[in-house]
Amino acid sequence: MELYIDRNALGRTLAGIQGIVERRSTTPVLSHTLIHARPQGLRMTATDTEVAFIGELPANVEAPGEIAVDANNLFQVVRNLSDPTVHLKVGSGSRLEVRCGPSHYRLPGIPAEDYPPLPAFDAKGSATMKSSDLRRLVDQVVFSVATDDARYGLNGAHLEDQGDGRVRMVATDGHRLSAADAPYEGTLAMTPRMLVPRKALGVLRKLLDGPEEDLEVGFGDGAIRLVRPGQTLWFRLLDGEFPDYKAVLPQECKHRVRIDRNRLGASLKRVGILVQERSRAVRFAFEDGEGTIQVHNVDRGEVTEKLPVELEGDAITVGFNVRYLQEILSVIDADHVELELSHALGPCLVKGQGDEDAFFVVMPMRLD
Amino acid sequence: MELYIDRNALGRTLAGIQGIVERRSTTPVLSHTLIHARPQGLRMTATDTEVAFIGELPANVEAPGEIAVDANNLFQVVRNLSDPTVHLKVGSGSRLEVRCGPSHYRLPGIPAEDYPPLPAFDAKGSATMKSSDLRRLVDQVVFSVATDDARYGLNGAHLEDQGDGRVRMVATDGHRLSAADAPYEGTLAMTPRMLVPRKALGVLRKLLDGPEEDLEVGFGDGAIRLVRPGQTLWFRLLDGEFPDYKAVLPQECKHRVRIDRNRLGASLKRVGILVQERSRAVRFAFEDGEGTIQVHNVDRGEVTEKLPVELEGDAITVGFNVRYLQEILSVIDADHVELELSHALGPCLVKGQGDEDAFFVVMPMRLD
Repeated sequence: MELYIDRNALGRTLAGIQGIVERRSTTPVLSHTLIHARPQGLRMTATDTEVAFIGELPANVEAPGEIAVDANNLFQVVRNLSDPTVHLKVGSGSRLEVRCGPSHYRLPGIPAEDYPPLPAFDAKGSATMKSSDLRRLVDQVVFSVATDDARYGLNGAHLEDQGDGRVRMVATDGHRLSAADAPYEGTLAMTPRMLVPRKALGVLRKLLDGPEEDLEVGFGDGAIRLVRPGQTLWFRLLDGEFPDYKAVLPQECKHRVRIDRNRLGASLKRVGILVQERSRAVRFAFEDGEGTIQVHNVDRGEVTEKLPVELEGDAITVGFNVRYLQEILSVIDADHVELELSHALGPCLVKGQGDEDAFFVVMPMRLD
Repeated sequence: MELYIDRNALGRTLAGIQGIVERRSTTPVLSHTLIHARPQGLRMTATDTEVAFIGELPANVEAPGEIAVDANNLFQVVRNLSDPTVHLKVGSGSRLEVRCGPSHYRLPGIPAEDYPPLPAFDAKGSATMKSSDLRRLVDQVVFSVATDDARYGLNGAHLEDQGDGRVRMVATDGHRLSAADAPYEGTLAMTPRMLVPRKALGVLRKLLDGPEEDLEVGFGDGAIRLVRPGQTLWFRLLDGEFPDYKAVLPQECKHRVRIDRNRLGASLKRVGILVQERSRAVRFAFEDGEGTIQVHNVDRGEVTEKLPVELEGDAITVGFNVRYLQEILSVIDADHVELELSHALGPCLVKGQGDEDAFFVVMPMRLD
């Protein structure tokens, strides 16, 4: 194997796959990336067997061949090289020789035949989505995915066909819920269990940076494949039961509060300084015209913030985990947010005013 | 106590003292800053009893008084306030009330009489130095100070009057040494043990950011005091014996190597990727015209870098800890560096070409 390739293109691809390879796996080959020089260019593969990435890079290939090398090692080397073109060659003893300007590396490799084969993918349906739409879905939902919850179905984001050419992504950890909708074109072949694992969401989100483009999303048996020019991402779906989230949505709105999003965000940041680390509880008292936000920390003091609100319904006092509200505010794209409550201990619906593409639910906390 | 003060000025002073107060001290009052409102303004004091800082801030004082409050708590509060003016007032129960725009904090305080008194300072000599000079001394020396070494005298930077209107700061951890000189005006009253502790160097360095100004340096009994407009820094000297560092300077130069500083820095960064974490050993082979830098890592591969050098004397092969050389290169302000060696296992002198204000010594490593 021997080829010449652009340093920056190689570096960008290596940066993208750092989130996929397992650095401390019991299977050392999973920390490697498979480098495959073909007449048409360089193919790079990375997988942890749950998520897989294939990138096609233009390269001047002098001799085809393949080898697997440690992905992090190669990334550190490539990002610091001095010259714009990198010369890669497989040397004796399964070593990848990297030459660039004054530098000559010999990195240990693993024969390509020891690299795990990627599973076959049989698309049952295929749709097209805008990259900006998919990026928004991930951003609005990922923070509500549970972390290593014993309720296995909470550890991923649930996909649901809304039937009107829109797909919904939903996640909940039992304390808060995110739901976001976006349009697609084509056919979704949804099975009842469409749970995208947290790690895949992270890898996907990284891939979606960059200019707007159309993505091809394929739905297979327990797996999803995403194709963009030169890159393919494949991930296995989680095998778990997502709860019936519609049952926790508030059934009626007795109190509707409208608040300037930036002012609320600034107030939450200031009261957040004094929250108790464990509960992160903040007390909200909404009256017509004025909201009062309070934190009382026995060791570090207390704080009261006032801010203007519009209230429909009776005055209400309610407690929230400040971080949950902050995470929601950070992904709402509207000047005002609306909170809808039926009572002080029932689920609270949060939406950007006039935004029909996403909603959030936060469970209040009992105030002492 | 009641006053109005500029939020940004208060925030900057609080930022500066975060490195002094002890956040996990067994004496809780040492995590506090003493706030003293006087007719002429606000005085803020912070100390860990080894280092002390006094800042004078303009303020509109309505009622004099004083209270000690947790310095980190107050800093987090002040940096997030919304409006340019802050209203401070001591309320009931030794609480500091902080009002600003929509925010009202009540922070627990400690009565001023429980705050430790600062030690008296009796200046035996006083000199004036430029802030840029003192900043350079600290930057060029601080990384060579030992960390918690059993040889107590290595845990600080040694000050020495050079007798020609110049003062030298020296530090060594036994593996490398830094020495930097700068001019002063006035009288230094040096005692044999002038060891500035590592923490004081850090606090001092932070204080020295900003525009050029003249600093008044006073030398007292086991302590140094630094005065700049509106700020006083006091620190206790370490009571330890600094070694006779001149004994380890190379006595003759049999090999002099001259290298472009930026090229050497880039090469060290690239070979540094593969150094063994424990030894960080790098092999240098200098011949006339060409230097070769090599690292061999049994797990992660090997790398060879070539770069142009000028050599006076015979070819030589020598090993160094790559980090020691990198730290020296980062504080040398010259286009070329010079390495002077008498033999491969003797101390190596490193200087910026044409720079007579600083020199460094690195002990080579035995190569396998």
